[in-house]
Amino acid sequence: MCSEPSFTFELQAADGAARAGVFHTPHGPIPTPIFAPVGTQATVKAMTPAQLSELGCSLVLANTYHLFLRPGEDLVAEMGGLHEFMQWHGPMLTDSGGFQVFSLGPLRKIDEDGVTFKSYIDGSMHRLTPESSIGVQEKLGADIIMAFDECADPFDKAYNERAMARTHRWLERCIKAKQRPDQALFGIVQGGIFADLREESAKFVSSFDLPGFAIGGLSVGESKEDMNKMMEVVTPILPQNKPRYLMGVGSPEDLVNGIWRGIDFFDCVLPTRLARHGAAMTFNGRLNMVNQKYTHDPKPIVEGCTCYTCQHFSRAYIRHLLQNKEMLAATLLSIHNIHTLEELVRQARAAIFAGTYDAFAENFLANYH
Amino acid sequence: MCSEPSFTFELQAADGAARAGVFHTPHGPIPTPIFAPVGTQATVKAMTPAQLSELGCSLVLANTYHLFLRPGEDLVAEMGGLHEFMQWHGPMLTDSGGFQVFSLGPLRKIDEDGVTFKSYIDGSMHRLTPESSIGVQEKLGADIIMAFDECADPFDKAYNERAMARTHRWLERCIKAKQRPDQALFGIVQGGIFADLREESAKFVSSFDLPGFAIGGLSVGESKEDMNKMMEVVTPILPQNKPRYLMGVGSPEDLVNGIWRGIDFFDCVLPTRLARHGAAMTFNGRLNMVNQKYTHDPKPIVEGCTCYTCQHFSRAYIRHLLQNKEMLAATLLSIHNIHTLEELVRQARAAIFAGTYDAFAENFLANYH
Repeated sequence: MCSEPSFTFELQAADGAARAGVFHTPHGPIPTPIFAPVGTQATVKAMTPAQLSELGCSLVLANTYHLFLRPGEDLVAEMGGLHEFMQWHGPMLTDSGGFQVFSLGPLRKIDEDGVTFKSYIDGSMHRLTPESSIGVQEKLGADIIMAFDECADPFDKAYNERAMARTHRWLERCIKAKQRPDQALFGIVQGGIFADLREESAKFVSSFDLPGFAIGGLSVGESKEDMNKMMEVVTPILPQNKPRYLMGVGSPEDLVNGIWRGIDFFDCVLPTRLARHGAAMTFNGRLNMVNQKYTHDPKPIVEGCTCYTCQHFSRAYIRHLLQNKEMLAATLLSIHNIHTLEELVRQARAAIFAGTYDAFAENFLANYH
Repeated sequence: MCSEPSFTFELQAADGAARAGVFHTPHGPIPTPIFAPVGTQATVKAMTPAQLSELGCSLVLANTYHLFLRPGEDLVAEMGGLHEFMQWHGPMLTDSGGFQVFSLGPLRKIDEDGVTFKSYIDGSMHRLTPESSIGVQEKLGADIIMAFDECADPFDKAYNERAMARTHRWLERCIKAKQRPDQALFGIVQGGIFADLREESAKFVSSFDLPGFAIGGLSVGESKEDMNKMMEVVTPILPQNKPRYLMGVGSPEDLVNGIWRGIDFFDCVLPTRLARHGAAMTFNGRLNMVNQKYTHDPKPIVEGCTCYTCQHFSRAYIRHLLQNKEMLAATLLSIHNIHTLEELVRQARAAIFAGTYDAFAENFLANYH
């Protein structure tokens, strides 16, 4: 732990709305734009931290909701915090638990003070409030922590008005509750698919001098057009000199579109979840590696790909592993999929520096199916 | 592929019956005594080849029975053979399929020519004979291939007499069938727990000028005393200048006892199977890492252990992974368990060079529970 950490964001280049920069954390710098793989239960599924390092990952996410329920934030704190516990020594981010809790539907009850919900593990009742979410995240000890927000159905305007207003009141409580100087608290903009609400939320949230800002409540069922439109409404309002984080977004086309509209951070379970289901991500779309057409295919998933998987293994071998339900399939496909997204943000960053992001994005989207 | 490979065995040191040496193969040297992890379906479960290399593994096994049924030896050959297919570039060994086929019980039918059996995948009927087992193993392309043998119930003397005699006839057929000069065929001694049969079998099998000899049909339910006694009967008969391989044996105490009686090679699924069930192997016995007593335990599985798992992760973290059924648990425990056996054979080898193997073995067995 560093006693005087500075969560500064250096903006290094801009190309239209797209930006390249570096966000400094106590556990090292995060070059942006960046994609963060998700280690829900303090492990990026089927991967060792050494494999994540080899992939050039800089930021790793963990989920407060899951760790709060098991093994509990006190145990993680006792083991020296998340970095020590899971042995990821680079920058980390925890969400607030809000999104998962609100996804529980009938299993949770919201009031002005917080949310009461049922554990998915043993049915026991638990409660999170803005203060306790921050308390849990302080015990987990990630570099970046998130405000506790209310995630509404994106299509219900009346609900979004109420949820946004509550998210704003809760943000003030999170800011007051926060104590650790070595953690950066990001505020979250809500407002569903409604431009006026998003605008109001972006103005309110960015009125606080926070080290970073997130856009929540997207990639939850709305159209790509709505997602892009909401980013176009929000990012011009957010301060230029602070990073912007589009939460839960991780498909290649969404990354390209998000960066185009000024997003700096992304996270998603997509690359590892697809891997466990036998799908490989490429710059041209997904490949279902169980497909019979790969049975005799000696080529790597992507020719020229520099990941460990593509440097060594054939499509035929990966299909064989999937057919036999071998764990190595999930590991090799996770390596390839995370590499694909890290390579995508590296190329995007280079294009921003080169001032060619428009062409990069147009070309990428034209070839992605 | 090497056109003139030499499967020579250099005996470097002996201490009583225990031996240290090097067996040379086209894919590199195997220092002995050696423990080989098992990659049943052309993958050591939950491990990348890079992780196996880091562990200092030299020999890796694959199972002919499984690969014959899926993906089929022709596909593996088409992909350049097992080494290329699974990307293990060190020495490899395939078994003959005999043991697995005979374990099928009512699902297989034996005749003098071979065995007909039902696929565990789709119920289809298949057949292996001494000739076709060698043919399959030649297509798979391991450095060391095994004779097709009949594995009998170790306690049934009449059956063992018949099975041994057939194994001997089949060995002659395997030797005739074998064509590839870059593969070493090992003969297998059978005879159950009967000293007279084991003696007869050892004499017969070692009458052939083969590059190595195996003891089959042990570690299948007989007592440790019987296993040790059979080794004591067989190893003095086998030629000194050829490696001896105790098939399917992998518990630490069996390795120590085997080396003490002149065994050079071991293989077993034990370290990876135990790992998937949450058990850690140590020089003092097994630890069930799901045990509640490890919940708050910040220590590594074994203090001072130099494996990646113990150098980084706490017992508490490994228990957390197991509780959450995270795949990383199997990987981390497989790394530790294989390391434990590789470290055990390295220490045994050093003790043989030092002429202190008796003390090493006595001390080890006194502390192993």
